[in-house]
Amino acid sequence: MCRWLAYSGSPVLLEELLYGPKNSLVVQSLHSQMGAEETNGDGFGVGWYGNRETPAVFHSIEPAWNDRNLRDVSGHITSGLVFAHIRASTGSPVQQTNCHPFRHGRWLWMHNGLIRDFTTVKRDLVLAVSPELYPEIEGTTDSEVLFHLALTFGLEEDPPSAVERAIGLVESVGRKHGVEHPFQGTIATTDGEDIWAFRYSSEGQSRSLFFSTDVRTLRAMYPENELLRELSDESRLVVSEPLGDELPGAWNEVPESSYGVIQPGQDELHEFTPATDLAGADRAG
Amino acid sequence: MCRWLAYSGSPVLLEELLYGPKNSLVVQSLHSQMGAEETNGDGFGVGWYGNRETPAVFHSIEPAWNDRNLRDVSGHITSGLVFAHIRASTGSPVQQTNCHPFRHGRWLWMHNGLIRDFTTVKRDLVLAVSPELYPEIEGTTDSEVLFHLALTFGLEEDPPSAVERAIGLVESVGRKHGVEHPFQGTIATTDGEDIWAFRYSSEGQSRSLFFSTDVRTLRAMYPENELLRELSDESRLVVSEPLGDELPGAWNEVPESSYGVIQPGQDELHEFTPATDLAGADRAG
Amino acid sequence: MCRWLAYSGSPVLLEELLYGPKNSLVVQSLHSQMGAEETNGDGFGVGWYGNRETPAVFHSIEPAWNDRNLRDVSGHITSGLVFAHIRASTGSPVQQTNCHPFRHGRWLWMHNGLIRDFTTVKRDLVLAVSPELYPEIEGTTDSEVLFHLALTFGLEEDPPSAVERAIGLVESVGRKHGVEHPFQGTIATTDGEDIWAFRYSSEGQSRSLFFSTDVRTLRAMYPENELLRELSDESRLVVSEPLGDELPGAWNEVPESSYGVIQPGQDELHEFTPATDLAGADRAG
Amino acid sequence: MCRWLAYSGSPVLLEELLYGPKNSLVVQSLHSQMGAEETNGDGFGVGWYGNRETPAVFHSIEPAWNDRNLRDVSGHITSGLVFAHIRASTGSPVQQTNCHPFRHGRWLWMHNGLIRDFTTVKRDLVLAVSPELYPEIEGTTDSEVLFHLALTFGLEEDPPSAVERAIGLVESVGRKHGVEHPFQGTIATTDGEDIWAFRYSSEGQSRSLFFSTDVRTLRAMYPENELLRELSDESRLVVSEPLGDELPGAWNEVPESSYGVIQPGQDELHEFTPATDLAGADRAG
Repeated sequence: MCRWLAYSGSPVLLEELLYGPKNSLVVQSLHSQMGAEETNGDGFGVGWYGNRETPAVFHSIEPAWNDRNLRDVSGHITSGLVFAHIRASTGSPVQQTNCHPFRHGRWLWMHNGLIRDFTTVKRDLVLAVSPELYPEIEGTTDSEVLFHLALTFGLEEDPPSAVERAIGLVESVGRKHGVEHPFQGTIATTDGEDIWAFRYSSEGQSRSLFFSTDVRTLRAMYPENELLRELSDESRLVVSEPLGDELPGAWNEVPESSYGVIQPGQDELHEFTPATDLAGADRAG
Repeated sequence: MCRWLAYSGSPVLLEELLYGPKNSLVVQSLHSQMGAEETNGDGFGVGWYGNRETPAVFHSIEPAWNDRNLRDVSGHITSGLVFAHIRASTGSPVQQTNCHPFRHGRWLWMHNGLIRDFTTVKRDLVLAVSPELYPEIEGTTDSEVLFHLALTFGLEEDPPSAVERAIGLVESVGRKHGVEHPFQGTIATTDGEDIWAFRYSSEGQSRSLFFSTDVRTLRAMYPENELLRELSDESRLVVSEPLGDELPGAWNEVPESSYGVIQPGQDELHEFTPATDLAGADRAG
Repeated sequence: MCRWLAYSGSPVLLEELLYGPKNSLVVQSLHSQMGAEETNGDGFGVGWYGNRETPAVFHSIEPAWNDRNLRDVSGHITSGLVFAHIRASTGSPVQQTNCHPFRHGRWLWMHNGLIRDFTTVKRDLVLAVSPELYPEIEGTTDSEVLFHLALTFGLEEDPPSAVERAIGLVESVGRKHGVEHPFQGTIATTDGEDIWAFRYSSEGQSRSLFFSTDVRTLRAMYPENELLRELSDESRLVVSEPLGDELPGAWNEVPESSYGVIQPGQDELHEFTPATDLAGADRAG
Repeated sequence: MCRWLAYSGSPVLLEELLYGPKNSLVVQSLHSQMGAEETNGDGFGVGWYGNRETPAVFHSIEPAWNDRNLRDVSGHITSGLVFAHIRASTGSPVQQTNCHPFRHGRWLWMHNGLIRDFTTVKRDLVLAVSPELYPEIEGTTDSEVLFHLALTFGLEEDPPSAVERAIGLVESVGRKHGVEHPFQGTIATTDGEDIWAFRYSSEGQSRSLFFSTDVRTLRAMYPENELLRELSDESRLVVSEPLGDELPGAWNEVPESSYGVIQPGQDELHEFTPATDLAGADRAG
């Protein structure tokens, strides 16, 4: 339904991430190769960390490919942690409050996929959001509700566990309402330090997700590549689809039902299993 | 916070209602004389009844005063029942889904005023909305939630009673949360036949509301006025503030805590008393 | 670059023209089959004739596929002469003043294609526009300049001749500046009575253009088709690409270098030859 | 018609300039105290210099007071040279290409006021723009044409002389067409190093313009003021109207028919006299 990109590493101009690559996110907004929808023209958003405690977000209802402000602003902002998202709406209105990434304090969240039969299950899910967080929901997307469920279940303390409980609740509520495959998608979230990226769907056939090969390995493979020499060892991209095919070996698919952690030191890849302990979920709600 | 206009009577061009009068709604969008805010530039909306079962709505996030589509479209549409609304946001996002009038089936609804401390009471109020209606809420305004409460309490069967129960609930929930004066405002609603217009506030100092004098009386007062000769006997306007001062005697203030019914035959004016039977309200919710 | 539709005939709801057909213009905005660009998401416009002397126009910078006002307004407006256009910008800004159809008095004009190297030839072309018409140019497209050249050359008196002179000037100015194939495209224009539709390009390989088969013939071919029984004998569509393939025989390609006239009585198809009498063009300019 | 602000000095967050002061530019967008129009809600723009050769610009058709992207982006961008402008249209369309500041290479330009009877004189003025610069004109404002006239007359070499010739041409063309007072307004322009600010009108009653008092003087007057201690000695603001009244003595009116130069070392104030040497102007054009 959408395409996204998460970057952590050496500070780069936003423009290099968004417009530089051959199959950049802006190119994908008009012609995605692997997306459920080829055109992702129903708004976009960029979030980045700068000198402030909280990240900045820039949301627009214009198609990314013809937004002049994005073009200009992204050429003047440098950041070492960037989230970007282009949207193909599945029916909910095209408005800034429905654009990813969503923000809560220091946290950002974005999602490609859907909660199936969302209008049917929405009320039950929203009821499970903590009353303190509830008034923060500004838009009408499934993705923003999912974010607030994860926050309710402790995203800020233990992200993988919170997402497992949030998606577990989506699956149990969905099945209660007769939805066969309640959840589909990939998710990225960050606190400004680490990035967690999830790939999971109830049917076991999830939207694509890729991470870039370790910069040290790529440098050994492509010793002439100048960009690779400039990037820090720990620089890493996670993307809905590869940003190009110029460097064979640069992209690795995230396996089904798993999540990765991009962090200082060794990054990690783990299995992802939605929580089925509904009692626990209920207690938290 | 906003300004609105409701018209019922001889079919007229939307443009005559919106742009014609000296102090028209479009003029008020830039310079309201009686509004809580002078500028109402945070979007607008128009709803009207045509050949279809359901009314049309046109919502825009542009200030009304410089929207060229409104100018052009309103010059080509004629209707005998029109709602129009200009918005001054009190914080909720400027997006089409927050523009009045709101629509449900054949019904339209618009509101000037506010539910005080809305973020505090929102969850309790939304919980009282019927689960069948809940997924229809698309925006984030207090006005849309109030509409869905009224629908939950039987707006389509008995509008005055439903609005009395909805505002009664707002007051009881507000007071439970320590809000001194939970509700303020004027409301208009219609099923495409009759119009109900309400003026009420918890503090007894409500936003202004006026209705136009009976056309037969005005004709007797101003026998030379051509427009009055063209209008049917039953044509009537209800407005947040008079559309001009050219015809002394043309505008009458709706009294505090009352509501009017514009209908075929004699129009009516009644007292308005929010329901305090919370048990009943709870049963309905 | 764009897609368009021109309709003349029995009054129809705009919605039926824009959303009804299987390969409707709104469908084409996301997935055009024959366009130079698959996605036409850089704004759209609709023009129609109603009760007024001049036509209405509705222009939007949103992609047509997610504009809710278009959806609603088009369901409440009926017209017997409609122009609609979806845009894929080739670089000029996405703004309402660059949306087709353009309007001058009773006339509408829309264009699919381009004046090549427009920035190079623009000044010379604009200089040839009549000084009285010059201040009316509001946007920055080649199409709007072409319209004002045609008006300068007598569009309101003799449309084919005026367009032949306008494109003749584009070709001579272009060649003077070393442009190999200065003009490409299809054009529709109307005075509210007749429609003129042109297909021409300097290189002899013009953008596609189709007109619908005579309703009487179609009725004989498809005696069961209800829609055809409702349409007047003279109803006719001219389109960039067929609106569907359900009725084989319904669409006919306009030949290269020709133009058609949709008018009361027998429609006509003629050869189109740009004027080379530059002296004459200069005199007019 | 508009309000603007130009800042040069110690690098500051855009947000401090735009939102910080009591009578900030964003406050003025809703309630200007000295403007020809109280509401300046027809779009806005910000331009600033960063690490690049050319400045960035951010243009929006939203009223500044409710643009969330402006709020967020301005909290993450620091610059030592900033132009900001809020617009009250006098008829030309509200579109990004009509938003100030305008940009050419390293130069920015903004204007408050008007060329009177612009539709009458526009063609003659545009003809005087250098053919090389002509295709760069993207919008329809008088201000952008004036900028391109100044560029034609050598803005990049000698700004005061170029502006004197540009306004001289506006006056001579205007008078030729019978316009009594052809020009009115204030202008700011910069090459990223110095700022030139002009106040002039044909009738000798120009829009207001103020510059801030020397920081060293202000520090001596207000030794307790912390902000003043942080600012470099050379920091300076030029504004359409004072940003507050907390520091009496902080604002000085620019005299009629004069211009100031903000530059390293001593700033300057000079008389402004439009060029009447039309022959010279013609030669340049």
